[in-house]
Formats: sequence, C-alpha cells, structure tokens
Amino acid sequence: MKIVVDAMGGDHGPEVVIKGVIQAVNEYETEVVLVGNEPEIAEQLKKNKYAGNKIHIHPSAEVIEMHEPAATSVRRKRNSSIVVGLNLVKHQKADAFFSAGNTGAVVCAATLGLGLLPGIERPGIAIITPTLKGISIIIDVGANIDPKPSQLLQYGIMSDAYFRNILNKPDPTVGILNVGEEESKGTEFIKETYELLEKSHLNFIGNVEGKDLFSGKSDIILCDGFVGNVALKVTESVVETMMTFLKRNLLSSMLGRIGIFFLIPSFKRLKKQLDYSEHGGAPLLGVNGVVIIGHGRSNVSAIKNAVRVAKEEVERKFTEKISEAIKSQ
Amino acid sequence: MKIVVDAMGGDHGPEVVIKGVIQAVNEYETEVVLVGNEPEIAEQLKKNKYAGNKIHIHPSAEVIEMHEPAATSVRRKRNSSIVVGLNLVKHQKADAFFSAGNTGAVVCAATLGLGLLPGIERPGIAIITPTLKGISIIIDVGANIDPKPSQLLQYGIMSDAYFRNILNKPDPTVGILNVGEEESKGTEFIKETYELLEKSHLNFIGNVEGKDLFSGKSDIILCDGFVGNVALKVTESVVETMMTFLKRNLLSSMLGRIGIFFLIPSFKRLKKQLDYSEHGGAPLLGVNGVVIIGHGRSNVSAIKNAVRVAKEEVERKFTEKISEAIKSQ
Repeated sequence: MKIVVDAMGGDHGPEVVIKGVIQAVNEYETEVVLVGNEPEIAEQLKKNKYAGNKIHIHPSAEVIEMHEPAATSVRRKRNSSIVVGLNLVKHQKADAFFSAGNTGAVVCAATLGLGLLPGIERPGIAIITPTLKGISIIIDVGANIDPKPSQLLQYGIMSDAYFRNILNKPDPTVGILNVGEEESKGTEFIKETYELLEKSHLNFIGNVEGKDLFSGKSDIILCDGFVGNVALKVTESVVETMMTFLKRNLLSSMLGRIGIFFLIPSFKRLKKQLDYSEHGGAPLLGVNGVVIIGHGRSNVSAIKNAVRVAKEEVERKFTEKISEAIKSQ
Repeated sequence: MKIVVDAMGGDHGPEVVIKGVIQAVNEYETEVVLVGNEPEIAEQLKKNKYAGNKIHIHPSAEVIEMHEPAATSVRRKRNSSIVVGLNLVKHQKADAFFSAGNTGAVVCAATLGLGLLPGIERPGIAIITPTLKGISIIIDVGANIDPKPSQLLQYGIMSDAYFRNILNKPDPTVGILNVGEEESKGTEFIKETYELLEKSHLNFIGNVEGKDLFSGKSDIILCDGFVGNVALKVTESVVETMMTFLKRNLLSSMLGRIGIFFLIPSFKRLKKQLDYSEHGGAPLLGVNGVVIIGHGRSNVSAIKNAVRVAKEEVERKFTEKISEAIKSQ
C-alpha cells in the first residue's frame, strides 16, 4: 500500500509532516510517497535519520499556501504538491492522499482530479470527534456551505457507511443540527432535509441541538458546511479560552498556584482527548478515492494518525462500500 | 421605576426567580412587579421573609411552558405571565420586562404587544459575553433564524448604540461571522450583508471566524439566528464537556486527586466568568420597550443581574437612543 502525503501542508511546515510520516511507516504496514520540494524533504529525512525504504519522494515545484483562494490556486498551480499528489492517486500510482494544507484547495483538487462517486452531488468533510459517550461524526464542516437537502441526505448515507465499515458500529443514529428539538423548528432547508431523512433507511432520530454536539446523543450529526465550520471553530476557541481563563485563575491564587503543579499531566491528557486532530484527520467523503484532510495545526502524532486512518479506509475498501450504500438507497 | 419580572419563567421555578428579585430590590433603586400565580408568589415572599414595599404582585392565571410552540401559545394563552407582564409595559404601568421563560414566546409576545421600533424589521437577541479582552455582543442568537441582510445591518446599528450607551464604549468594532477572513468567503447572504455593512457608518472590520468568538477580535459579532443559536449552545456544551473530562482526568490519577482540592475555588470562579447569564440576561433589541431575556437555567444572581440590566436600559433611555441611531443611518 502507498499513501501520498503532502509534505508542504500544515502550519508547522515539512519538518512536522515528515516526522509524523516516519513514525507512521515504522508503526504501520504501509509505504508513503512524500510530495513536495525534493531537497527539503531529503534534508528532513536525513536530519531525522530515516534510512528505510518505505518512504519515497515525488517532487513538486509549487505550494498552495494556506490562505490562497481554493479554486483559482488549484487551476493555476498544476505543479503544487496538492494537485500532483492527488494525480498520483488518480493514476493509481498510490492508494490514498493526505494533506494538512489548504482545506479548500484539497476539496477542490480532489473533486476535479478524482471525480465524485456516482450519485454524489458534493463532497463533505467529516470530523470524527470525541463525545462523553464515545465518538461522533459531524458532517459537513466546511466543504459545502450552502448545500441542498439531498446533499445532506448523501452525507448521512456516507457517514452511516463510515460508522459500519471503519468505526465498526452497526446502525448508527443520525441527527440533524437544529435550533430546537421539536420537528416544527428550523429553516425551510432544515425542514426539507428532515423530511428526506425520515423517509430514508437511516436510523434517523430527529433534531439535535448545539448542546448535544459532544454529548453523544447522536452518532452522526448533519449540518450545512457554514454552521459546521462555525461550530468547529467555536469549539476550538472555547477550549483555548477556557484553558487561558483557567491558567489566569490558577495563577491568581495561592492554592491555585500549588494546584497547577499537580495538574499538568491531567491537562495534557485532556487537551489530547478533546483535540479531534489526534483522531487522525477528517475524511473527505464523496470523492472517488481515499482523501484525508488534516487540521493546519496538526502535530506529529496527528500526521501519524492520519496515515493510519487513510490506510484503514483503503484496507476496508471504503470507497466501494460508500458506492454500494449510495446505490442501495 | 418598576420592572416586571415573569415569576413563572425559568427551569428552577418561582423560588429562584423570587429570591433573585428580593436581592435586586434590596440592592438597586427599583420596584419589581412579579407576574404569575398569586398564592405561590405570596408564599415564596413570605418564606424568604420579604416584608418591604418594593415588590408588587400582579396575578396571571396561565403559564407558557418552556417547550410550547411560541406563536400558538402566545395567541392562546392571553392570561399567561409573559403576555400579561408585557401588557403592563405596553400600557405604561411598568418600565421594563424580564423573563427567563420560553424565549420564543417572549420574542413573539414582545413583538406583538410592544411593536417594533420605526425602521426595524425583526427583533434580535443580543448576548453580552466575556472574551479574553473584555466584553462582546453576539447578535442574533435565535430570534430570527433566516434574516435578510438589511436585518443584520439593523442588528449592527442597535448593538453599536448598546455599546455606546450602556457599555460606555465609543466606536465599537463590528464583524460578521463567516467561514474565513477573506472578503470572498461565505454564502450569498453573507456577501450581501458584507456590502451593506461596508457602506454603513458602523466601524466594520470585516469577517470574523468561529475561533474569534471569545478572542475579543470584534466588539460586535453579527450572525443569523440559526448560526448564533448553534454557536451559543455549542459553547455551553464544550464548557460542560471540558469540565466533565477534566474531572474524570483528575480523579483518574493520584496527582490529579490531590490537585483537585486546591482547584475548587478557581473552578468556581472560572464557571462564573464564562457564564454569560451572570452578566444579566440578553437584551431583545428592536422592540418598542426594554425587554430582557434570561437563560432558562438562570440562577438567583443571574435574575438579580437581569433586573439591574433592565434598570440601566430604562435609566439611560436606551429605546430612544436606538430609535435615534436607526433614524440617523
């Protein structure tokens, strides 16, 4: 198996990506193709004393930066690590693609390069997040900010397949993110989606609210990409704000200053538990191939985990499973 | 001054509301009219040994429960504490109204009963929330889930007036909640709103993201009521989830178990800092009168603070100030 990793993607640059990849090939049965600036990659591999034969370099001349507009940059930078890397998957020279780079560009390049699965109108980004009861999928978190109800139904079907085939849970529950629990609540878009979901074969449990996002009330939570993106970024912001307030509070009292020494290990564990990037990146569902999107700030272990998730999707023939699920609806 | 308080509103029932009101009249220069079940209110006043003359009872026979549909229940329950209480303000027998009851019903009854200010198309609920830098207003958080761009502009103008007149800050910054910082981002609705804001007299700083909600990047954050409602409930959920995870983490290690004893005071202070209800309820902007909406789970101090906020709005003639701001745009 060969997984393509965008060496140039992510806030921390090639160093962190390459460290994560080295850990991944040492730990898992897979090869990795690093796409990007060849001398830079070679230098990092040397610096990290990697001398094995499971990491390959595929050169690419350009980089799509984090804040470049997605569609334009994908069209113009045909030699970027994202476009070149996805072409390797398209031409079956590799099995999956991972990037912690410009999310919009990955979505756009994957849609254009790999195409969509039959019956899918738009791809969606699925976040796999820890909850009080286990794990939930929230989809979409930014690929499709103004979707149609039929597209949310498709996200539901694909996430259902993900739960069954990758997360090993049969019959996952599906909820739609709304401003109240009652069926009468929400915009016209929500009401139409609600009706479609009710008629589907999914295990639809109705509306869930923002407060249920991490309660584990529903295994799958559907929302438009605008709301999903805001919800995700609000979550990150609240976690960071709480940590800052807590630190300020602790440092402002004698008892707190003593307490903080006892707490450092717990804080570190908490941050890890709450950080969805630790869980291995976000699958882009609906494209014809395995594509995993990483958070820009992915650290070494997030990169490693993303390679693992990509490998699992390939091994379990997830793309075929989704196609079957869509056909049988 | 007389402030009407819905004695029947809130998850904790009349007891908590009345305790908060007693604290308020003892602390602030105002009278309160409690609307609701007369014997129940009288009993609570007696139980809490209130013997002053600053609290009055105005009986009402019905209660709109927390989960009743707003429009229907306001139409049918003409004798509910919410409708009766707002009528006292309408007929100038009192100066302001506060309820921690059914939010939708308060919005609906206030709009029908008091009417809207000239030039305002829809009321909006403004949350005043702590940030890393001070205080921000987020509007709308649920009164108007499918607004027009012109309505978001109106929320901006009203919040600007709130900052200047109630929070004593001249020239507050205004941002619009979007999925990215670049002007090109977002739905058609967002782009149209962006243009309107750019042309306005407001101190518009452009897009802000979910991650900026508590960073203090913008004094005023505009969003549609759907996104605002989800963002608010996600925030509550993340705070609670973090507290639960942290407790679990602390209890699972020896150091953590020791540390927790040192931390209890800091945790309590943190919770208070993050709880926007502590700041006194959410003003309903755009109706012709002072209306404050409390969180269902408002505690005694939240009720007390809401009475204070209502009093300040009345004293500073906030309704007139908003009207002037709208006219001068």
